Amino acid sequence: MHTTVEAFAESLESLRSRVNQELDALIEHELLNGAGEVAVEAGRVLRAGGKRLRPILFMLAYRLAGGKDEDEAMPLALAFELIHTATLVHDDINDEAEQRRGIPTIHTTSGQAKAVIAGDWLFVQGFGLGGRYSSQIVEIIARCCANIAVSEFHQLDHVLNLATTPEDYFSIVKGKTAGPFAAGCHAAGLIAGLTEEQAHGLARFGMELGIAFQLVDDLLDLRGDERMGKPRGADVHEGKMTLPLIHALTLSHGTHRQRLSELIEAFTDADFDELMALLDRSKSMEYAEILVRTHIERAQAELDVFPDSEAKRLMHQIAQFVIDRHV
Amino acid sequence: MHTTVEAFAESLESLRSRVNQELDALIEHELLNGAGEVAVEAGRVLRAGGKRLRPILFMLAYRLAGGKDEDEAMPLALAFELIHTATLVHDDINDEAEQRRGIPTIHTTSGQAKAVIAGDWLFVQGFGLGGRYSSQIVEIIARCCANIAVSEFHQLDHVLNLATTPEDYFSIVKGKTAGPFAAGCHAAGLIAGLTEEQAHGLARFGMELGIAFQLVDDLLDLRGDERMGKPRGADVHEGKMTLPLIHALTLSHGTHRQRLSELIEAFTDADFDELMALLDRSKSMEYAEILVRTHIERAQAELDVFPDSEAKRLMHQIAQFVIDRHV
Repeated sequence: MHTTVEAFAESLESLRSRVNQELDALIEHELLNGAGEVAVEAGRVLRAGGKRLRPILFMLAYRLAGGKDEDEAMPLALAFELIHTATLVHDDINDEAEQRRGIPTIHTTSGQAKAVIAGDWLFVQGFGLGGRYSSQIVEIIARCCANIAVSEFHQLDHVLNLATTPEDYFSIVKGKTAGPFAAGCHAAGLIAGLTEEQAHGLARFGMELGIAFQLVDDLLDLRGDERMGKPRGADVHEGKMTLPLIHALTLSHGTHRQRLSELIEAFTDADFDELMALLDRSKSMEYAEILVRTHIERAQAELDVFPDSEAKRLMHQIAQFVIDRHV
Repeated sequence: MHTTVEAFAESLESLRSRVNQELDALIEHELLNGAGEVAVEAGRVLRAGGKRLRPILFMLAYRLAGGKDEDEAMPLALAFELIHTATLVHDDINDEAEQRRGIPTIHTTSGQAKAVIAGDWLFVQGFGLGGRYSSQIVEIIARCCANIAVSEFHQLDHVLNLATTPEDYFSIVKGKTAGPFAAGCHAAGLIAGLTEEQAHGLARFGMELGIAFQLVDDLLDLRGDERMGKPRGADVHEGKMTLPLIHALTLSHGTHRQRLSELIEAFTDADFDELMALLDRSKSMEYAEILVRTHIERAQAELDVFPDSEAKRLMHQIAQFVIDRHV
């Protein structure tokens, strides 16, 4: 039995490597079938993804739930990674982002039209894999993806909306970021043979972990982190109302709130120190950090009902990684 | 047994009405589930579609193949209509088209970002329905959709490319327009219980009909037809190399070819008469019309192996409609 940190890292690395091999094989297979440039462009962004957090997590959820045949869960794990990448390609068009995962976005290298289609192609590949499962699983995937779109509409309506509430924020995050974590864990559990009730516990684990993950993303965007593969402050430049900003706007008054509004509405890189000082006044970064820990604790508590296993310990470790990312 | 033209029209209208009811119900169901604006916008374009040629055809192919339970084929028929509408929404962004099906496009009313997402939402709804079927059917749908994306990349590469050959043209049309007709008929046949070989006959029917359908679209774009729901010459303005243009460029020489190239490369509405006169010189419209009839005849011949039925007669009638559209 593995107990050391090194052994954990090795197990995760082995899963990541397996996922990457499968994704490579999928792209190669499409290229052999004559897919050409769309597979090259989509494959370029797909292969640039490093962590593979979602597919690794879903493979572990499958194991935790008693699943023995990894080939049974792999198409599901890949489907979510492909759909996730599709949404990134389309989001980047809408955000006019130049970089993603440290490489130029498709619309930057090949134009908007091809980026829209390359995103569609990734969606199709994902759904092709997801469609191999029962109607129950297909419904979970489709519902999750429809919710992503609904939440993206809400997010667009809240761009630069200084009246955005924490409730708005969490509703958007649950649909867009945490929903897919929840759906993947839920489906993995069902595929492994869990009852609907047991699988819902895994869905809650995914939802809580996903919320924490988004909060960490918010924090890293403000602090700057080269692992993000995009420039510091991209969210602020795009007018995205992240939780630290929403919190600071809620707690600030008078001239401080006035100045904070001005900074958000016309942000430039030169404003970073002043913005961070204002967030510091309302302890908004600290507040988001506390929420990260709360949601991670809730996620981990959902694992208690499952018997001890390597998969369970790895899932705890991944939850810990999510916290550690922002330290 | 129905034999009159009126009875045929009634049967088709009854199918169309059934398809429209199902699409309405899907949108209403999503709205009740809180989908909000994305379902409103996507639903607006979806409901503006009048002919429902694809879903009607796939329902008839199912009946022709001996299928008895329409509920068994309806999700497939709806899936293709939803996916078709999704590609229209994304195409219109890329073509900067202001109108579709006679109403303003989503990116015109709500901006590009929401149009990208609304298209994704329609894709998801389509795949959610398509994913209810066996892996074999899902694979047909996914392969068809991947081919649409591949062909759209090729089409973009051929915009204003005066060296585009008929072979390039037919390869793009087979992937983008005719492929979905073929895939839908193929899948409908399999769902009804045909052997793979028998169902391939239906796939060929769909492919031939789809090629004819695209050729008619090319002709109507040049002639102008209010039923298109978009302005006359939209293809020429977008730099799309339609078959009449490719044919005329191939046959024209000297100053005529020079002038034709100039017209295509910088087309304005004032150039219509001159363009049509040049197409007339090379009999390019007539050539496309002959090809329409050839492909329709080939499509109809594929039906010969199936026993006589109302569905078969209606499919012949639809093939005839495709020819009649351009008269």
